[in-house]
Amino acid sequence: MSDAVSPLAPTDVPSMPVIAGVQLATAAAGIRYKNRTDVLLVTFDEGTTVAGVFTKSKCPSAAVDWCRANLKGGKARALVVNSGNANAFTGKTGKQATTLTASIASKATGSPPKSIFLASTGVIGEPLDATKFNGVLDDLARRAVNDGWDDAARAIMTTDTFPKMATATAKIGKATVRINGMAKGAGMIAPDMATMLAFVFTDAPIAAGVLQSLLKAGVQDTFNAVTIDGDTSTSDTLLAFATGAASKAGAPSIKRANDPKLKAFAKAFYSVLANLAEQVARDGEGARKLVEVVVEGAVSKQSARKIAMSIANSPLVKTAIAGEDANWGRVVMAVGKAGEPANRDKLAIYFNGIRVASKGARDPSYNEDEVSAAMKNPEIQIKVGLGLGKGRDRVLTCDLTKEYVAINGDYRS
Amino acid sequence: MSDAVSPLAPTDVPSMPVIAGVQLATAAAGIRYKNRTDVLLVTFDEGTTVAGVFTKSKCPSAAVDWCRANLKGGKARALVVNSGNANAFTGKTGKQATTLTASIASKATGSPPKSIFLASTGVIGEPLDATKFNGVLDDLARRAVNDGWDDAARAIMTTDTFPKMATATAKIGKATVRINGMAKGAGMIAPDMATMLAFVFTDAPIAAGVLQSLLKAGVQDTFNAVTIDGDTSTSDTLLAFATGAASKAGAPSIKRANDPKLKAFAKAFYSVLANLAEQVARDGEGARKLVEVVVEGAVSKQSARKIAMSIANSPLVKTAIAGEDANWGRVVMAVGKAGEPANRDKLAIYFNGIRVASKGARDPSYNEDEVSAAMKNPEIQIKVGLGLGKGRDRVLTCDLTKEYVAINGDYRS
Repeated sequence: MSDAVSPLAPTDVPSMPVIAGVQLATAAAGIRYKNRTDVLLVTFDEGTTVAGVFTKSKCPSAAVDWCRANLKGGKARALVVNSGNANAFTGKTGKQATTLTASIASKATGSPPKSIFLASTGVIGEPLDATKFNGVLDDLARRAVNDGWDDAARAIMTTDTFPKMATATAKIGKATVRINGMAKGAGMIAPDMATMLAFVFTDAPIAAGVLQSLLKAGVQDTFNAVTIDGDTSTSDTLLAFATGAASKAGAPSIKRANDPKLKAFAKAFYSVLANLAEQVARDGEGARKLVEVVVEGAVSKQSARKIAMSIANSPLVKTAIAGEDANWGRVVMAVGKAGEPANRDKLAIYFNGIRVASKGARDPSYNEDEVSAAMKNPEIQIKVGLGLGKGRDRVLTCDLTKEYVAINGDYRS
Repeated sequence: MSDAVSPLAPTDVPSMPVIAGVQLATAAAGIRYKNRTDVLLVTFDEGTTVAGVFTKSKCPSAAVDWCRANLKGGKARALVVNSGNANAFTGKTGKQATTLTASIASKATGSPPKSIFLASTGVIGEPLDATKFNGVLDDLARRAVNDGWDDAARAIMTTDTFPKMATATAKIGKATVRINGMAKGAGMIAPDMATMLAFVFTDAPIAAGVLQSLLKAGVQDTFNAVTIDGDTSTSDTLLAFATGAASKAGAPSIKRANDPKLKAFAKAFYSVLANLAEQVARDGEGARKLVEVVVEGAVSKQSARKIAMSIANSPLVKTAIAGEDANWGRVVMAVGKAGEPANRDKLAIYFNGIRVASKGARDPSYNEDEVSAAMKNPEIQIKVGLGLGKGRDRVLTCDLTKEYVAINGDYRS
């Protein structure tokens, strides 16, 4: 496994502001890694609301089960994230580990276990030794401060090649509120798979139900529209926390999802999710190209999504991109196998804006040299026009390289 | 691209008998390849029935459209197969090419175009110059003989590393009938994808509707249960031809699918399909391991199939097999993402018969050395017990190697 940062990493690292009511601290608890931080504790002031969306896996991790149960209360006082062990497929001991972790965090922060949220990422099937949090979380609770976002984003990494952060501001009424987010993506923990974790924090006073609506709506075209290899982790977790501290600056409390005052905030919140999701695609295992798949002219947005996902998950399309080959025959194949309405004789296919195929055949103006040059770009857009309706959608992915196979297949050799 | 034969190629090449009423000939028509045969003509005696199943792609090739239309007649006099050009996504010229090919074959064989069947495999989007068949098919019709199966199986190869043949006999009444089959699989034609073609021939007197029933039932657990990379070609074609010549040896005509005299034949027919389908998996692009995924204890066979396909198509599972890693965490992931009923705490997972996980956790008797030794086998069985019901299914696939990425991504470099 290479230590090199992905060539697709963003060049601008955001400067993360303080979010009033949020304190962070990290530690090296030795869960799996040596010489690096692997535990993040985030504490929240009283009154913080919480929302979450999770993996659709039928075999979710114990931490996902734990969060789902606690989400009903709508209140959060602490978030504990560890890397190195996913606490997934660990049976009863997995459940016991979540209970013990929350109990230790509860004592450390002086808040009830039902206000503690947990996320674990790393090895599947290895019991998580939660006693390692003894002492550590107490210390972290004492040390937690309102900056140090970069340290936090690094502590949740597994084999991510760069920390993923995004920030935005918005007006609610006349008050400016802040939104910070961090994510970890498609790194790989031997012997296990990528897990996407993302956490978003704001000082805006947003009721838990409203936050949940924003999250559910926002995830659809951001994290749910990113695919690295079509494989879904047992542990994917996206949590949002709203401390409400901006009330002091005059921000009105938002209690209804259709409150018009929410509009600018919703847009900024979405931009943070979209930014983080793109960073996940940029750090896909072995990725050398960021690939945006746009499908237009489908019978519906849902149909466009299915076709875009079929293209984005096709190993033959992804290897072609790795080979800098504008292989629209494989795109036709992926459109055809999606099972959605499509008419061969109406298809148009573009690579980085150059139309290579139209009306069921190669474009008459196809110029191999022009297309080959375009494919050398580190960012590739594949656009498909179906010519059937107004359905449009977009997903992000990356190419499939020998490095991906090496990362996921070579570590035993 | 390597010229080496897949290490998973069968060691026994079957000796293919004559099928009365079937004549074959091959030629090098220079469609794309140099110095190799690329056209196969098979002619059938009068009275030959035909059945077929095709790709589910919404963007099928012109040859698939042609066959689907002709299948309604139920009669076949000739089959023309070319490699090197798929005649897919070629618009109106594609349709014209099929019409012209059939017209040339019709004159060459003295039979109506509607009794001519076509299959093309190779480049997508390049117009097929059907005038290249002029003269060639006349010559083939004159030269066609009732042996030469090996030459035929080679002429339909693209980048398959070995020709794929299978044969069987069965009794219908007191007469012995013969079944021969050939297939081409997951070879790759720059710049295009694998296409599966398979043809089965018998001298048994089977009505077209009965043959269609046998094919439809037989394909479900054979060709439809094989996946190399989850990508579906625009051109997948499976055709069966029954000459009825065995009537002269006393074989009774079979006109109903529920005729009890069909039982032994159906079994032998199925064995030929299963044998060819397994050979396709053994020649998957870059394959070094044949992988059988068995799912038991599902709520239904359909549910077991979906879970088995989720495992068999998971890049993370397939790269783990390539790395000889019994990574059951990834199997859990693939079970979880299938979306079918599964209970984490009831799952059991086996690699080549060794139970590595049970009841939602690592098996207490797990022995790393024993499992690692088993993973060195070129044939790997992944078995998942769901513990929910009696649904069982099985699919075949292969591992995902750097060679796969090289074959599909490197040819431009």
